[in-house]
Amino acid sequence: MLAPRPSLLLAPRVLGRWVKQLHGTAVVAKKMTALDAGARATELPPLTAAGWAVVSDRDAIKKNFNFANFNEAWSWMTAVALAAEKLDHHPEWFNVYNKVEVTWSTHDCNGLSLKDVKMAKFCDEVAAKYLKK
Amino acid sequence: MLAPRPSLLLAPRVLGRWVKQLHGTAVVAKKMTALDAGARATELPPLTAAGWAVVSDRDAIKKNFNFANFNEAWSWMTAVALAAEKLDHHPEWFNVYNKVEVTWSTHDCNGLSLKDVKMAKFCDEVAAKYLKK
Amino acid sequence: MLAPRPSLLLAPRVLGRWVKQLHGTAVVAKKMTALDAGARATELPPLTAAGWAVVSDRDAIKKNFNFANFNEAWSWMTAVALAAEKLDHHPEWFNVYNKVEVTWSTHDCNGLSLKDVKMAKFCDEVAAKYLKK
Amino acid sequence: MLAPRPSLLLAPRVLGRWVKQLHGTAVVAKKMTALDAGARATELPPLTAAGWAVVSDRDAIKKNFNFANFNEAWSWMTAVALAAEKLDHHPEWFNVYNKVEVTWSTHDCNGLSLKDVKMAKFCDEVAAKYLKK
Repeated sequence: MLAPRPSLLLAPRVLGRWVKQLHGTAVVAKKMTALDAGARATELPPLTAAGWAVVSDRDAIKKNFNFANFNEAWSWMTAVALAAEKLDHHPEWFNVYNKVEVTWSTHDCNGLSLKDVKMAKFCDEVAAKYLKK
Repeated sequence: MLAPRPSLLLAPRVLGRWVKQLHGTAVVAKKMTALDAGARATELPPLTAAGWAVVSDRDAIKKNFNFANFNEAWSWMTAVALAAEKLDHHPEWFNVYNKVEVTWSTHDCNGLSLKDVKMAKFCDEVAAKYLKK
Repeated sequence: MLAPRPSLLLAPRVLGRWVKQLHGTAVVAKKMTALDAGARATELPPLTAAGWAVVSDRDAIKKNFNFANFNEAWSWMTAVALAAEKLDHHPEWFNVYNKVEVTWSTHDCNGLSLKDVKMAKFCDEVAAKYLKK
Repeated sequence: MLAPRPSLLLAPRVLGRWVKQLHGTAVVAKKMTALDAGARATELPPLTAAGWAVVSDRDAIKKNFNFANFNEAWSWMTAVALAAEKLDHHPEWFNVYNKVEVTWSTHDCNGLSLKDVKMAKFCDEVAAKYLKK
C-alpha cells in the first residue's frame, strides 16, 4: 500500500487557493477586509468633504461627476477603468452623456474597504484635471 | 449706389452647398422625430426578439449584456462609445464588472427614434463578436 | 440704388454661425483641400510655437507627448480617438508606455488641411489638462 | 492497495506550470528574465505560425493587424491596453485608422520574456473575435 503523500493529498486545497490567486491575479490581498472604526474615522471625512456620500441602505460611497461633454466623461471613465482593472476592483457606475454616477463598495467584505478609498481618491484626482481647467 | 458684393450675391449658392454638406453629416438632423406606428411595427419586433425590452414607464428600450469579464465589457462599451459620439447619440448605461445595462431613448422627441434602433443594432452586432466565439 | 437685402446683408453673421456649426459637426466636406498660403501663414506658426514640427519629407505635422504614465497617455489617446472618429479624421500615432508621437496629415489632399490644424489644437488642449496640473 | 492517482502524481508538474503562470501575472515577478533556449523552442514557433515576426535587429516580435475600420481597431487596442496595464507590460504600437502594428519586447531583460508571449497570444485571441466573424 502506498504511503500517504501529505503534500500531494493536500494539494487540491492548496491548488484551490493558488487557482483563486491566479484568477484574482493583479493584486494579491485576496480578501479585502472592511474598514475598521479607526480607518473609517480617518478615511471617510476627507471623502465626504470632497462630495462622496455614504449610501443609506448599504455600506458604500457614491458621487456624481459632471463633465463638459461625453468626450471628457468617457476619457475620465477610461482612466478609472484602467486603474480599476489594475487593482482588480471595479466600480458600479452609470453614465449618460456628460454625467457619471459612481459607487464604490467591496463585495468581499460586503462594505467599504481601503480599495474603495483608494479608487474614490483616484476618481477625484483625475476629475480635477478636467474640472479645474 | 452700393457696389456689388460678389461674395454676398454668391452667398445663396455657397450657402446651399454648405447646408447640403451640413445635412450630409452625422449630427445634422437637429431634431430627431419619434418612430411612427409603421416604423415601430417594422423596427421594434426584431429588437425585442433580440432581447431588447420596451421600458414600461417611458418610451425607451433596454437590454442587459453579460460579458466574460471587465476587459470584454469595457472593450465593447468603447466600441459603442465611439459609435455614439460619431452619431451624436449617447446611451444611458450602467456597468458593474462584466455586466452592462443599456437604455436607448431620444431626448429630442421624448421617445424612440431611428437613432435608437440603429444604436441598439450596433450594440448587438459588436456584442455578438464577444458572446458567440 | 439697390434695395437692401436683409437676408444677404445678414449673411456674413449667419454664415459665420453656420460655419461654426459646420466645424463643430462630424464630417463636413468629403474632400478636404490643402491649406493655401494664407491659411498656412495664419495657422502653422501657433502650432510650431506649441511644439508641432513640420515633417521634412511630406506635408505633415508631428509632435511628441510625454505623460506621467500609461494611464494618462491612454486616457488622452482616448479623448483624441473619440474626437477623431467624430470628425472622421484619424491620426498616425505611435505609443509606448507614457509616450505618444502623433502625426497629422490629410490623405484627400496629400497634405495639411484645416482638419489637421483642428485636431492638433485639440491634442494640445486635452494634453494641457494632464501636463499642467 | 490504492489505485494510482495520476492527477495527484502529476500535480507537481502542473503546479510548476501554474506557479509560472502565477509569476507571469501583474504584481509578482519584478524582473522578468529572458526566454531560455527551451522556452524559445516551445513558445516562438506557434507565434510565428500565427503571423508574428521576429524583429531582425533586436530581440522582439512584431505583427500587423488590419481591422474593418477605426472603431474595431480602437476597441481591440482598448482590450490590449487594459490587459497590458494589468500585467504591467505595455506594447510599442503604431496605429493609423484600421491598422495596428504591435511590437512586444521586455525592457527588463532586453529581449523576449514570457510576458511578451502571453500578451502576443492575448492580442491574437481578441483579434480573432473581430477578424473571424
